[in-house]
Amino acid sequence: MLNIAPLSYTASKEKAEAFCSSNIALCKYWGKRDEVLNLPTNSSLSISLGKLGTRASICIGESDMLMIGGKPIATQSAEYTRLFTWINSLLGNNRPCLYIHTFSNIPIGAGVASSASSFGAILKAMNSFFGWQLNDSLLAHFARLGSGSAARSLSRGFVYAKAGIDSNGVDFNVITLPQTWSEFRVGILYVSRAKKPVSSRDGMKLTVQTSPTYKGWVEYAENCCDEMIKAIQVKDFTKVGEITERNALTMHGTMMGCSPPLIYMLPKTLEIIQKVQQLRSQGIEAYATVDAGPNVKLVFLKKDEQSIKESFPTCEIISPFESAF
Amino acid sequence: MLNIAPLSYTASKEKAEAFCSSNIALCKYWGKRDEVLNLPTNSSLSISLGKLGTRASICIGESDMLMIGGKPIATQSAEYTRLFTWINSLLGNNRPCLYIHTFSNIPIGAGVASSASSFGAILKAMNSFFGWQLNDSLLAHFARLGSGSAARSLSRGFVYAKAGIDSNGVDFNVITLPQTWSEFRVGILYVSRAKKPVSSRDGMKLTVQTSPTYKGWVEYAENCCDEMIKAIQVKDFTKVGEITERNALTMHGTMMGCSPPLIYMLPKTLEIIQKVQQLRSQGIEAYATVDAGPNVKLVFLKKDEQSIKESFPTCEIISPFESAF
Repeated sequence: MLNIAPLSYTASKEKAEAFCSSNIALCKYWGKRDEVLNLPTNSSLSISLGKLGTRASICIGESDMLMIGGKPIATQSAEYTRLFTWINSLLGNNRPCLYIHTFSNIPIGAGVASSASSFGAILKAMNSFFGWQLNDSLLAHFARLGSGSAARSLSRGFVYAKAGIDSNGVDFNVITLPQTWSEFRVGILYVSRAKKPVSSRDGMKLTVQTSPTYKGWVEYAENCCDEMIKAIQVKDFTKVGEITERNALTMHGTMMGCSPPLIYMLPKTLEIIQKVQQLRSQGIEAYATVDAGPNVKLVFLKKDEQSIKESFPTCEIISPFESAF
Repeated sequence: MLNIAPLSYTASKEKAEAFCSSNIALCKYWGKRDEVLNLPTNSSLSISLGKLGTRASICIGESDMLMIGGKPIATQSAEYTRLFTWINSLLGNNRPCLYIHTFSNIPIGAGVASSASSFGAILKAMNSFFGWQLNDSLLAHFARLGSGSAARSLSRGFVYAKAGIDSNGVDFNVITLPQTWSEFRVGILYVSRAKKPVSSRDGMKLTVQTSPTYKGWVEYAENCCDEMIKAIQVKDFTKVGEITERNALTMHGTMMGCSPPLIYMLPKTLEIIQKVQQLRSQGIEAYATVDAGPNVKLVFLKKDEQSIKESFPTCEIISPFESAF
């Protein structure tokens, strides 16, 4: 464990709010090397989604309460338990009761990293509410305890989460790459907004335990991040795109070998991927990535934005480096 | 190389004909450990498809000629070159010219093992035409030189092709399992009869060279055969089905990690796989398998034949152990 002084649970103000962008991993993390510390087996690298994400607010309440998008969440639900177990791990059991509200403008549990931005925003709100003034490294550590990809949502742009190898996670580290890339675009194509049948946590566990190709994935995924950082440094978009698409397909391929087989993709997911591959042969340089859900995200540059809109009229296009959100 | 006396190329009759069933690998082979000797990296196990396959006829001609389904094949085509290169490797260059006709009642090049039954049938026809009287082991060896899965098409029922490890392939071996299973059914669902964009040979090469999860596949695939033989011995259909489906998905998952990504499946392929998985939750015990193409094959037992017909009205159902074909 990191050597951390106990976190104060005395409110420094009446209410606090914070926003975190969601993020899309271009090099994905799949599998934990420590369930309790929520340490990833492999490093990952993401791009933040600007104004898409979660706003969280926190205040003292008469009992613990979680509201998501204005709806109170049952105390027996998985979301509720997961959140307050995490909060207890940070504040201990003598903490005051808390009202926590989150509002996400992305679908929950559909593979668009809603838990990443939710945990990130709640942590930032708590940091402000309790006046902790935590440094980035501690914020990343605490965020990760809540959701593996939340540490990547604390920052903007390209964010690299280094898995590390230390059993206590002291070398887990989140680095925001200095590069900005104003032409960089992310497109989201919703195939289904339904909640995925197998959570990322359960899917990872199944993959680590049963996929015969998991070992190959881990080695490859680690290498992907190194290659991706180099490609971003020189703004080689073809390389960035190729790594992105292949990384996602290798991850989904690794899941397909699980027992029982784990397939997050739907026929429509595959249809979009193959259409994107076809578009490339026509000179429209877009690449697809898919997380633990059926939705497809595209990466492309500004020059192809119009073509993407024509090919995918429902595509939600994000400019991750847009200044204000 | 096997120590083989030169094969005679003196015709023993005016014309010879032979038929070989196509076969569907329940445990698939993907990747060669020797390109020239066409030795597989991993063992495989198949079920033959009864009356679905290829009839080949051979006679002396004025020049080499290949006709497939009544159509003459261009001498510059890949099929023509592949066939006569193989024949030259068996008979040498002083052989007489040959007319070879094949008639397949399965689509060519669409992942229903048409080359397996074609090479198998041509070899058997040559064996009869030239009066070679080769034993099963030599037939398997020569068939494999033509097509990796052809050795499995020389026999009927469950056929196990042991990859071996010897660099000359002397321990490559094809074993017909003694078990018959009259209730066993194979269903074929054609998604597309178009020729696949990447041949199995090229796809295997790409996978061996570029898939980061290939090593995991090889180890797993070898183990699959051992498990499958045990399951067939005790007629544990659930086990047979589970191994079949997972083996195929692991293979396709391994291909997905290639650079560039290799995806033989089409959206419809995935739709069928997911429908089959859903049917199982309703008590209809069918399992899906997919070869290097978009078509889906199902395995199930006679008791579920009616349900399969209702769920998939276009399904072509085969009884591999039917006596006559």
